[in-house]
Amino acid sequence: MIVVLKPNLTKKEEAAVLKEIRKLGYKPHVMRGVERTVIGAIGDERNHPTLEALSAWPQVEKVMPVQQRYKLVSRESHPANSTINVRGALIGGKKFQVMAGPCSVESETQLMTTAEAVKAAGATILRGGAFKPRTSPYEFQGLGLKGLKLLAKARQATGLAIITELLSEDHVDMVAEYADILQIGARNAQNFQLLIAAAKTGKPILLKRGLSMKIEEWLLAGEYVLANENPNLMFCERGIRTFETYTRNTLDLGTIPIIKRESHCPIVIDPSQGAGRASLVEAMCKGAVAMGADALLIEVHPNPAEAWSDGAQQVSLAGFAKIMEALKPFIAAAGRE
Amino acid sequence: MIVVLKPNLTKKEEAAVLKEIRKLGYKPHVMRGVERTVIGAIGDERNHPTLEALSAWPQVEKVMPVQQRYKLVSRESHPANSTINVRGALIGGKKFQVMAGPCSVESETQLMTTAEAVKAAGATILRGGAFKPRTSPYEFQGLGLKGLKLLAKARQATGLAIITELLSEDHVDMVAEYADILQIGARNAQNFQLLIAAAKTGKPILLKRGLSMKIEEWLLAGEYVLANENPNLMFCERGIRTFETYTRNTLDLGTIPIIKRESHCPIVIDPSQGAGRASLVEAMCKGAVAMGADALLIEVHPNPAEAWSDGAQQVSLAGFAKIMEALKPFIAAAGRE
Amino acid sequence: MIVVLKPNLTKKEEAAVLKEIRKLGYKPHVMRGVERTVIGAIGDERNHPTLEALSAWPQVEKVMPVQQRYKLVSRESHPANSTINVRGALIGGKKFQVMAGPCSVESETQLMTTAEAVKAAGATILRGGAFKPRTSPYEFQGLGLKGLKLLAKARQATGLAIITELLSEDHVDMVAEYADILQIGARNAQNFQLLIAAAKTGKPILLKRGLSMKIEEWLLAGEYVLANENPNLMFCERGIRTFETYTRNTLDLGTIPIIKRESHCPIVIDPSQGAGRASLVEAMCKGAVAMGADALLIEVHPNPAEAWSDGAQQVSLAGFAKIMEALKPFIAAAGRE
Amino acid sequence: MIVVLKPNLTKKEEAAVLKEIRKLGYKPHVMRGVERTVIGAIGDERNHPTLEALSAWPQVEKVMPVQQRYKLVSRESHPANSTINVRGALIGGKKFQVMAGPCSVESETQLMTTAEAVKAAGATILRGGAFKPRTSPYEFQGLGLKGLKLLAKARQATGLAIITELLSEDHVDMVAEYADILQIGARNAQNFQLLIAAAKTGKPILLKRGLSMKIEEWLLAGEYVLANENPNLMFCERGIRTFETYTRNTLDLGTIPIIKRESHCPIVIDPSQGAGRASLVEAMCKGAVAMGADALLIEVHPNPAEAWSDGAQQVSLAGFAKIMEALKPFIAAAGRE
Repeated sequence: MIVVLKPNLTKKEEAAVLKEIRKLGYKPHVMRGVERTVIGAIGDERNHPTLEALSAWPQVEKVMPVQQRYKLVSRESHPANSTINVRGALIGGKKFQVMAGPCSVESETQLMTTAEAVKAAGATILRGGAFKPRTSPYEFQGLGLKGLKLLAKARQATGLAIITELLSEDHVDMVAEYADILQIGARNAQNFQLLIAAAKTGKPILLKRGLSMKIEEWLLAGEYVLANENPNLMFCERGIRTFETYTRNTLDLGTIPIIKRESHCPIVIDPSQGAGRASLVEAMCKGAVAMGADALLIEVHPNPAEAWSDGAQQVSLAGFAKIMEALKPFIAAAGRE
Repeated sequence: MIVVLKPNLTKKEEAAVLKEIRKLGYKPHVMRGVERTVIGAIGDERNHPTLEALSAWPQVEKVMPVQQRYKLVSRESHPANSTINVRGALIGGKKFQVMAGPCSVESETQLMTTAEAVKAAGATILRGGAFKPRTSPYEFQGLGLKGLKLLAKARQATGLAIITELLSEDHVDMVAEYADILQIGARNAQNFQLLIAAAKTGKPILLKRGLSMKIEEWLLAGEYVLANENPNLMFCERGIRTFETYTRNTLDLGTIPIIKRESHCPIVIDPSQGAGRASLVEAMCKGAVAMGADALLIEVHPNPAEAWSDGAQQVSLAGFAKIMEALKPFIAAAGRE
Repeated sequence: MIVVLKPNLTKKEEAAVLKEIRKLGYKPHVMRGVERTVIGAIGDERNHPTLEALSAWPQVEKVMPVQQRYKLVSRESHPANSTINVRGALIGGKKFQVMAGPCSVESETQLMTTAEAVKAAGATILRGGAFKPRTSPYEFQGLGLKGLKLLAKARQATGLAIITELLSEDHVDMVAEYADILQIGARNAQNFQLLIAAAKTGKPILLKRGLSMKIEEWLLAGEYVLANENPNLMFCERGIRTFETYTRNTLDLGTIPIIKRESHCPIVIDPSQGAGRASLVEAMCKGAVAMGADALLIEVHPNPAEAWSDGAQQVSLAGFAKIMEALKPFIAAAGRE
Repeated sequence: MIVVLKPNLTKKEEAAVLKEIRKLGYKPHVMRGVERTVIGAIGDERNHPTLEALSAWPQVEKVMPVQQRYKLVSRESHPANSTINVRGALIGGKKFQVMAGPCSVESETQLMTTAEAVKAAGATILRGGAFKPRTSPYEFQGLGLKGLKLLAKARQATGLAIITELLSEDHVDMVAEYADILQIGARNAQNFQLLIAAAKTGKPILLKRGLSMKIEEWLLAGEYVLANENPNLMFCERGIRTFETYTRNTLDLGTIPIIKRESHCPIVIDPSQGAGRASLVEAMCKGAVAMGADALLIEVHPNPAEAWSDGAQQVSLAGFAKIMEALKPFIAAAGRE
């Protein structure tokens, strides 16, 4: 920790700060600069109480942490890329992976039609929401267990692995029984109890970035998964909330090189939530591939206009096939398969 | 719903839109303007599928909802102010209420000292976290059940009602047994399963605004409580996330007149989280009182520098007494007691 | 400056950083912590090149400045409050000041009617836009010189001082000839050439906060005024841009105690731009007074629905009189006149 | 315009709204829905006063515009892509263009070295700031005229066209004499007087997006250029301000497909400002190419650590050559040259 003192303190005022720093378990190291005196407080910031409370003292101008707060997710602790094996599909390896399917599971016909179409176009993982977190209590909340069973049926029919959202601690066992990947949604990205419960299933976790989550906070939420002994974590950027209203969210593709730099875990991009508009999905997929993402998560529906949720952002079956075709040269240019 | 069409459509293209609107249960009403044709789609937006998916159609420029999406929390449905009785303290009535206490319950001494001091200064409700949602898994997570028992003991000793955070569906029964008000934190403000479970206890709910929650989304999260037959809801503004880094959050005091206009539920202001700096708390309390808030939620600690969480934003016992004194003329000016 | 090194550097890699720090004019001071080595670079950050470029070096994890970047606007350099005398109205003193008038000057009748009404209600300064910065080139751009002349006429008739916006370097002489206070709008808050030109007139400057300006940047923009030898600067908070769409902007009333803490210059609140809705103006005025603002800037129009600009946020003459009346107890509670 | 009325109005209250709509030049068209009555106000929103002021009326719930506010920049008015010819380099055509050079012009050696290196690596346009808008008055403000002359010399020596920033109305003639493209910076993106003056030179204009500018506002700022009879406009995304602090700005690559959809003008990406970190520039360039940008604007410096401004985000000469090489397969994949 670095503690910057206010100018013109008396010796006694300064000594009180030094005493408190020692009391909290750090060794203070004083540097006198031109306008400010700065104290380096030496000690492990993760094992001792934070000094940030000192910033409320009248003697202190600011307190700045030095260490990274995350450890297990960091590339520093694990220099090589991690990969996650999901029924034979390796996420984070040389092969670029595509997860696709409807926002919500609505019916057997809808799901099966979609599953076969996305498989034919090259997807290896089927997405589909059985439990849906909805802004309004009056909106469709998902088919629940019935939806999970339909996903399992689609897996059996197509061989595609299944990713579906987990949004309640009460559903952990049920969802983990059916899903190959547990998706933690943006609104639950700092629901730490849910993260812990999900981690303990041992299933691969796809952790979406919260709507206004700083990258450091996202990495720390991921740290909850690894600290609960589940190494199968992937991050998923799905757009952040900004002032812009043209799109539903602002897809932050810059997270791709940043996550690759800070962490060893794979990074997945969700352009459907990111854009909120089907017409923007193709360009965003191309950008994600070029920038080094490991996988895409795309919403696909046989008839978007009649989807029970988020119709504006789902692409049609034909639209999806066209996107997959358009991505090929970029996947090759990125040195992926 | 209002559907704005692209210019220069053929009759057939326009007819396809009208057909889809009818199919989804609305009666279309066409208005031809100078540059655009606009369709009013008449029907209850809460009972029919949304038309927003139409915005992905090539014929459609944009789709705009007309109705409010929330109902039970709205002032339209309940013109008079609601009040909530918490062990005799009426929130939302003429008397201005103050909830105060430590960020985290740390020990019996810490809690009892604080409880007595805040009571002496005029608070009627004691706050204290027993379960703490922490950004990092390596930070103090709260005393848990032991903390709840200390809160109950403090209530018995002082007569103060208790507010504490509920952050897990698995804790609902345990926390509801001890607390007089269940606090839903900012990071769980759209954890809808938790909201439903909390509502079903029948206990008063204090719903904090999420870090990047629009007011409409906040009202809709509140709608989850009322729709689950719990009328005892209060909203709590605690600062939103913006680009500003001087403060931890940006306290949006404008929510006071807005919530009063849109809803009948009480509004509480949390200046401690809002500012993240103890030195700004007093001014923010004054603003909250003047603008018509019903209550304050203030973090108070006997020794903020050594607090186990969020020390920078907690005020000392003497600081709290000073704030309470300073608020008196503003409470009087606002016509409150 | 504090330079945090990456872990596990060789001696040679570390030496290269130390050499560069010395080359740029700082004296390096090395502290070895538990996980990181930190270098305190001692020297005046305002007289030497910044070390921030070092953050691009592979050896460096981050670079953190220590000093405040602003000087003349800081309370550190000028502990007492500054006051600005505008034709006898003292801004920043014990008397609370109100500036009021139409968004745009539209006609002699409109301006005179408003001027007399706001004076009768207690305002001491008349606002009115002669040059208007408009988002679209097709919107009304102001009456220009004709508007300035009407403002001068209103001053003569009522004795009210005049505040009006300056938005072009080409208009500096013209606007300075008529105005008592030059207003720099949010969109020009970092138009540094305009700030310099305005400062050089010697006229009092009201500097609005830019839409997404950090407080540090706002203080530094103000520093441009004082560094050009004009001490008559006041800051004006008018709402920042956030994700919220209910209001036009999010009025950040927390700036009042922050500016009071960091600077000696007066702080003015503009609730009309801040809210963008006339119905919210009264509550925001009360909050501003209670939190210690020095003055208000309120948009008032004889017939808001027919205003040529920003009608939704202007209050009527009767509405303004009512607000002024409602503020009285809060002005008294705040110890102002 | 669409005017949504409050529920339960009397006939007289409704009639007053209709009367005002007619008075402002629109023909009202009433639609009675299930919960709300909606009025379509028919008339050209660009020729009549806006109805938005009606939203302040007690009878009115909200007012929603229907028309696009921009015209000349819209793809609707000009379906084909526009191209801009800058000394033979066509921007917006099949060939992908790269503009590169130092943040600030510092010396002849620095500029010439950079110019030759970026030309050798494939750039066709040289960037370099002669006038620099700096957050603090104490930072280097650019070499001014001397810098412009050095740029002209570099053009003569290398044949590269020149882009440089215009930040003052007082400099328009001087800068236009030397520059091939006038760059309008983010902080001046809504300095409308500067936009008009720049447009009138007839020189190509590169308009950066403001830090918190909505896409609609950006298009409208561009409209100022075209409405002043200068068709040579290109938009440049350089990152927006969000809550994230890991990067200096959040580069919004989603603007590429959006600008392509809404406008006929070319779109340029500035990854240097966008990221604020040299190590992220390469990935962002790849994303920009893949998503369909027409050109890049990259900061390159012979020795970034000693740059007089923004050293952290400038890439070295070798780093630039490496990026240009890495982009080739993506340029090919995008069907560009």
